[in-house]
Amino acid sequence: MYHKCKKEGLYYIVGVFVNEHDIVVIGCGAGGGTAAQFARKTDRKAQITIFEKESYPQYSKCGLPYVISKTIPSPSDLIEFNEDWFKKARIDLHLETTVQSIDTKDQIITAKGSDGSVAKKHYTSLIIATGAYPLIPPIKNITVDHRLLHGVFTLRTIDDTKDIEAFITKEGNATVIGAGLIGMEMADCLHKREMNVTLVEALPSILANTLDDEMSSPVEQHIKEYITLYTNHLALEAQSDGQVIRSLKIQNRSTNETKSIPTDLLIIATGTTPDVSLAKQAGCNIGKTGCIKVDANSQTSQKNIYAVGDCTESIDYVTKRPVRIGLGSIAVRQAIAAGINASGGKYHLPDGVLQTCTSEFFGIEIAAVGPSTISLSDTELITGKHIGSSLPSYYPNGKPITLKTLIDAQTGRILAAQAVGDNAAQRINTYATAILAGLTIDTFRKLETAYAPPIAPTLDVVTLAADIAAMKQERRHGR
Amino acid sequence: MYHKCKKEGLYYIVGVFVNEHDIVVIGCGAGGGTAAQFARKTDRKAQITIFEKESYPQYSKCGLPYVISKTIPSPSDLIEFNEDWFKKARIDLHLETTVQSIDTKDQIITAKGSDGSVAKKHYTSLIIATGAYPLIPPIKNITVDHRLLHGVFTLRTIDDTKDIEAFITKEGNATVIGAGLIGMEMADCLHKREMNVTLVEALPSILANTLDDEMSSPVEQHIKEYITLYTNHLALEAQSDGQVIRSLKIQNRSTNETKSIPTDLLIIATGTTPDVSLAKQAGCNIGKTGCIKVDANSQTSQKNIYAVGDCTESIDYVTKRPVRIGLGSIAVRQAIAAGINASGGKYHLPDGVLQTCTSEFFGIEIAAVGPSTISLSDTELITGKHIGSSLPSYYPNGKPITLKTLIDAQTGRILAAQAVGDNAAQRINTYATAILAGLTIDTFRKLETAYAPPIAPTLDVVTLAADIAAMKQERRHGR
Repeated sequence: MYHKCKKEGLYYIVGVFVNEHDIVVIGCGAGGGTAAQFARKTDRKAQITIFEKESYPQYSKCGLPYVISKTIPSPSDLIEFNEDWFKKARIDLHLETTVQSIDTKDQIITAKGSDGSVAKKHYTSLIIATGAYPLIPPIKNITVDHRLLHGVFTLRTIDDTKDIEAFITKEGNATVIGAGLIGMEMADCLHKREMNVTLVEALPSILANTLDDEMSSPVEQHIKEYITLYTNHLALEAQSDGQVIRSLKIQNRSTNETKSIPTDLLIIATGTTPDVSLAKQAGCNIGKTGCIKVDANSQTSQKNIYAVGDCTESIDYVTKRPVRIGLGSIAVRQAIAAGINASGGKYHLPDGVLQTCTSEFFGIEIAAVGPSTISLSDTELITGKHIGSSLPSYYPNGKPITLKTLIDAQTGRILAAQAVGDNAAQRINTYATAILAGLTIDTFRKLETAYAPPIAPTLDVVTLAADIAAMKQERRHGR
Repeated sequence: MYHKCKKEGLYYIVGVFVNEHDIVVIGCGAGGGTAAQFARKTDRKAQITIFEKESYPQYSKCGLPYVISKTIPSPSDLIEFNEDWFKKARIDLHLETTVQSIDTKDQIITAKGSDGSVAKKHYTSLIIATGAYPLIPPIKNITVDHRLLHGVFTLRTIDDTKDIEAFITKEGNATVIGAGLIGMEMADCLHKREMNVTLVEALPSILANTLDDEMSSPVEQHIKEYITLYTNHLALEAQSDGQVIRSLKIQNRSTNETKSIPTDLLIIATGTTPDVSLAKQAGCNIGKTGCIKVDANSQTSQKNIYAVGDCTESIDYVTKRPVRIGLGSIAVRQAIAAGINASGGKYHLPDGVLQTCTSEFFGIEIAAVGPSTISLSDTELITGKHIGSSLPSYYPNGKPITLKTLIDAQTGRILAAQAVGDNAAQRINTYATAILAGLTIDTFRKLETAYAPPIAPTLDVVTLAADIAAMKQERRHGR
């Protein structure tokens, strides 16, 4: 369909046949790769080109912790679509190639390969899937010559797992900073490798963006059986022998007391910064969150430029306010829309994101949907919480499951839900459906859930938590 | 609150204080017991009386097969609320007492105890929870002197499990008639007791009321590894030594060939007949299905008479047609409504039943929601089916899960769904919510489901099946 012509060290990638859709995708993560895939499904004749900085085709970043734990034997197992797959799909994938600039006037991008070669490529539609960089908090001496100290890592790429592996030793000391989903997963995975794990979190509780304190506190008690946890502690200073980390100095935020944590391996899991430099250069509007603004078609403010994944801003479905989400599930859904729309199809996403998420660590499954409680601070809320079992009381081996829902005290509309325990994720999907449909708690509480003694109780925790919220609302309104 | 006064062999149960709510419940199964419980929650002062034929207080009939399998050690473990519980809740429970008649004019029921004593009790509200009898198909010589042959049983009560137990022998021959949910559960439970199990079903496929052929056929293949299955076979004749069953003669409905199945224990699981004699006598309208008609308040056509559970007719939420359902989950929800409404509260059920159901046998979980495909025969349907895994392809130990959805070809509204495999029940609950909310497939397919590698794939089978239905509908309408 096209060829490269070398001309004084400069490649021109030129369409030989004029295609109606000539789609360029920047980034081959879950977002970029999926967008290309759906563009191909939508238009068999489209020319599709992907430029990716890394040397691996589309792989699961969410799977990286499980390579560390050896649950997944090899990093290459994470590759979901290999180069052959892209070839067969007639998607031109350029690995180790960094897009340097976008010329929106002539619709041409300039990319540089790891071999120093420079290529220009025309597009009719551009899909930006540049993702995000790990955020490094201001910890004294964490870098040497603008590079992280030896033994200090973030986890964002397959290469990171290879570098981390060299520092994993049985009974060595691993410290993880940040008790969000990834920090918790990493703490569990390093514990599985029989390291002594310490988890340091600046906020007073773990998983603060996902679970309310009353939901996270039993999880906190549980994980303390396996690791050392310091909540409400700042990471102050990396202490090293000049090259390799030896310990981490942390400080209690209430008492200001400091402590030195022996550390052979330090993982920083304190969030990310969106990679929006190319989008800015292309004139795409950037939102308050610092991410690229996109609409329900995954389209940016620039004609023919789409953006997907961790570099984009989402609108929360409930609050209608902009939010930054680093979820692969949202990236993939945006990518489906971008791929289809960029190649002439039509695919509109719902009017915002539900933020449905889940994870599992130290044998506990957690899940949540809807905006965080803190972001609902201007809404009068009613909560309903039920601590139950996955099975009827008379059936053996029921597992604990706690579910909490948040509703609007005035309208009764379901806004959010959190679950900890058995099948938390699938139970939260039921709430996600309710929120998507705009159901009130009074309708939802009467949901007929599936019941059989070996599977679930007559009344599942899903509706029992709803009952509690509904009854509180009834009382509030004197019904 | 009241006393019994013996008077020439006749008890009068008389309210000493006049209560606004004087509630009588006939039957203490899941329906009757729950209704009494919710009446008590609603009105602390209500007088509440239950009459129950059996000698056990509220127990789980759905749990009976698992007593047979010994998963539940003792039948008494099935008792969810014992006599003490009812006493503490100030609910007057009369076991081994059969209500014989209802005088709707004076609002008095007459009941007879197993000791021959007769009691009369006034009511302001009556809740009929008389359940259903097992249906015995016309099998030659199945009865002797109007009683089932020795070794032939239905499974409806705790006493049945005790009687069945005497006929369970390792490597003995057990035959089950009826491959519905209970027949399948019984086949599995008897197989767990190391009996040689044969399952006989008159219809061409198993689970015909729950799953479409394409969904049940892999289940059929799977269970044949454990038991002998004859679908499309009629049970013709019980062959005995005069007292005890020895074999069952069955006939292939296509070829008319007959065969004799050695049988030491025969379980009949071919459905039930509603027990509506008292309701008829009280003048309650009986529906086309032969069950008591009730409205969204669980109220019958008779003022102050409610009915719940297997003796009632439901309206299907999707087709709005009357259906007969024998699900404990529906009985309990009707009972919540009846108990609350009978005692002065207000509780309206949704505008019909979803028929959400689940079961598990031979290690396979199945679930379904919505009307059976056959009852949707006057609707133009589109189906979407996806065969997937519970986990991303790169994560070990993913389990198979197949999900099928049925939508209205014109409107795109989701009508029903069926699932076989991992977490079928909780996945079906998500569809139940979508059906309750009246969602179209185009909205539902974009549901953000919870994703994490150890828990669920980026795109769950829940939405992947929906995608297929949605795309078929788009093609049909040329979009």
